[in-house]
Amino acid sequence: MDFGSILIMLVTLFVLAGSASWVFSRFGVPGLIGEILIGIAIANLTIGDWSFLGMLDIRIGDDPSQNYEIVELLAQLGAVFLLFSVGLETKARELLSVGRAATLVATLGVVLPFFAGFALMQLYDGNMHHALFLGAAMVATSVGITARVIKDMRMMDTKEAKIVIGAAVIDDVQGMVVLAIVVGMTASGEASASNIVLVSAVALAFVALALASALWIVPRVYRYFEERKKKRSTAIRKRHRSDKLVLAIAVCLGFAWISDTIGLAAIIGAFLGGMLLADYAREWKLEEKMESITALFISFFFLNVGMQVNLGDMANITVIALAAVVILIAVATKYIGCGLGARLGDKTLSKGSRNIIGIGMVPRGEVGLIIAAIGLASGAISSEIYGVVVLMAVLTTIIAPPFFARAFRKEYPLERGRGQEI
Amino acid sequence: MDFGSILIMLVTLFVLAGSASWVFSRFGVPGLIGEILIGIAIANLTIGDWSFLGMLDIRIGDDPSQNYEIVELLAQLGAVFLLFSVGLETKARELLSVGRAATLVATLGVVLPFFAGFALMQLYDGNMHHALFLGAAMVATSVGITARVIKDMRMMDTKEAKIVIGAAVIDDVQGMVVLAIVVGMTASGEASASNIVLVSAVALAFVALALASALWIVPRVYRYFEERKKKRSTAIRKRHRSDKLVLAIAVCLGFAWISDTIGLAAIIGAFLGGMLLADYAREWKLEEKMESITALFISFFFLNVGMQVNLGDMANITVIALAAVVILIAVATKYIGCGLGARLGDKTLSKGSRNIIGIGMVPRGEVGLIIAAIGLASGAISSEIYGVVVLMAVLTTIIAPPFFARAFRKEYPLERGRGQEI
Repeated sequence: MDFGSILIMLVTLFVLAGSASWVFSRFGVPGLIGEILIGIAIANLTIGDWSFLGMLDIRIGDDPSQNYEIVELLAQLGAVFLLFSVGLETKARELLSVGRAATLVATLGVVLPFFAGFALMQLYDGNMHHALFLGAAMVATSVGITARVIKDMRMMDTKEAKIVIGAAVIDDVQGMVVLAIVVGMTASGEASASNIVLVSAVALAFVALALASALWIVPRVYRYFEERKKKRSTAIRKRHRSDKLVLAIAVCLGFAWISDTIGLAAIIGAFLGGMLLADYAREWKLEEKMESITALFISFFFLNVGMQVNLGDMANITVIALAAVVILIAVATKYIGCGLGARLGDKTLSKGSRNIIGIGMVPRGEVGLIIAAIGLASGAISSEIYGVVVLMAVLTTIIAPPFFARAFRKEYPLERGRGQEI
Repeated sequence: MDFGSILIMLVTLFVLAGSASWVFSRFGVPGLIGEILIGIAIANLTIGDWSFLGMLDIRIGDDPSQNYEIVELLAQLGAVFLLFSVGLETKARELLSVGRAATLVATLGVVLPFFAGFALMQLYDGNMHHALFLGAAMVATSVGITARVIKDMRMMDTKEAKIVIGAAVIDDVQGMVVLAIVVGMTASGEASASNIVLVSAVALAFVALALASALWIVPRVYRYFEERKKKRSTAIRKRHRSDKLVLAIAVCLGFAWISDTIGLAAIIGAFLGGMLLADYAREWKLEEKMESITALFISFFFLNVGMQVNLGDMANITVIALAAVVILIAVATKYIGCGLGARLGDKTLSKGSRNIIGIGMVPRGEVGLIIAAIGLASGAISSEIYGVVVLMAVLTTIIAPPFFARAFRKEYPLERGRGQEI
């Protein structure tokens, strides 16, 4: 391992991402868009013989270089820490209070895009596998992107934010079930019912267990230690300042691992782990502490989203036309499905609130990319369809945040001071 | 890359290190010793067919597994962030005020151990290369270990701490020069004078430039931006809260890279980078923010120090006897040399202060290990001598901190509240 080569890569990427984020946020655009665009530039820019990838010893693809594997690892950890931070600000009690609306938003936001994507590909090339995977890739909402915009705008305490985050979590669980069904169907020609039931049951049990722990078990453990602490002297109590952060990081990584092991995305576990500690996050100053750690990692996540776009593969009129239609359908079905879900789920929501929720669910980001990668690896989809899915995931991610921020500002005009912080 | 396998490894190591650190600090022993011992246990414990290394897919050695390379990377980044944090608390002006004492402490602390180690190996097997490398490996002080104890005890503002940190930095620079001489001599049979001059000049120029920047350039840049900021509205000023942390991380990694590139240890650059921002660390809340980041990484550094000990190689009476003599000489020469340097450098230092400085310079840690690894890779030393150097580096590191902490408590008895925080 060449530490010097890794260091120069980390510095270069970190400085480029930080500068792009800073410039974009100056113009009122969420900084993450700058980071994604810089990622696209890094992966695709060549001047004569020179390229960023060559300079930084980054090789993306089937046989990635060690430097790129490090970027990928930091990116995945960044998403995990970000979702943990979001979890820290999501109290289980409050999430359940928007449960009905969030469930309807999530479900309609899964059903509509899946069938629209499926129908489109059946019309395009009639390939069943292509149709199944494109449908699946259009299903899952990227809670990471939306969560960052919400956090940046300090809107976590609004009802709309809670519905969007809650629906995105439910969405991801449903997305994993859809993925399991699709993988089962492409492998055997038909979905194995027992496999679908198993995946759904495990996913639901995990979420339910985490919610139950947050509501009943964690508060009891906390009270037990508080009682014990009161009996001891103040001097001892003051000693272990950094223990709480170590505990938090352990919970974050541990839940991410459990989630990954049972076949859900690691970020779902991280989110649930954060939720477990949400009631004590302020007292233990976990939010600020995790913010520093997230700041170090998260730029690599957005850089990597951009770096996976191969502009060369996209320079083809059929692919561009297909991508344009897919993106239009992806945006429209998610917006309509989720808006409809919000209307059915909570009659008190205004038109502006439904608009926020519809837009907030549009970005596909990392989960769409994961599904596309699985499809490509299993040979179920072509590299052309893969490119379209990547473009769809990236563009819905780029398009949505400014509109999302504007919708929030329109609905909460009195709180202008809470503008972009990134 | 298997993210699940990486996650379970990170969780397991992090939880084990955190628990060991917590238990040891309960008994008044610096937590890092617990982390090093856990590292030794992880690398050497086998129960039947089961081992930590197998479970976590860690393979240490010439052909390391990807999981171990990740541990190594986190360990190196941990040392970099730790030294950056130490730099943030070291104002250039104050470091120069102890410059004379620190230089004498460092120089005598280099000369004595080198010649003692050289003489010992000439007596042991008469092999010139062995003698040169053992001498070189005994030279450099591990500022990382001592710095953590100082930070944990909140003694950074004492004169002794400043002399030790200053001397350790000068020591590392001198250690790199010694390494360059030794490598030159083992390769060509004699040291190339031009190479020695070049390495020394580059190292000194880097340190001098960093000091000059800290004293004259950075304050001017800061004042320029402050003036500009005053002209703008308050609303814009409040926007960019996290920019300062991004800037700090960029400076930290950037200086580490420069240092690595010009042939010094990366941690030296990180320390100097921290020193550049020391005057603004409090205002920008950098210390707390970096503390969270360091807490995530640093456990892996101490775990890795322990994981590099192969107890199997050590189970040999000749090696054990040699190791015992080497460790005795390593401790005695460093303690006497540095104590003497302190006496000559600053007449006002009490016997207790000289004691602190002598003990504080004993740990060899990572730099001794780096030199040993270079010697092994170039074939200049046998794996047996390598084992002895590793044992020397690890044991001086384990032995020194409790005595160091005790010496500090003896000299500053009124500030008992500042006990172990880790």
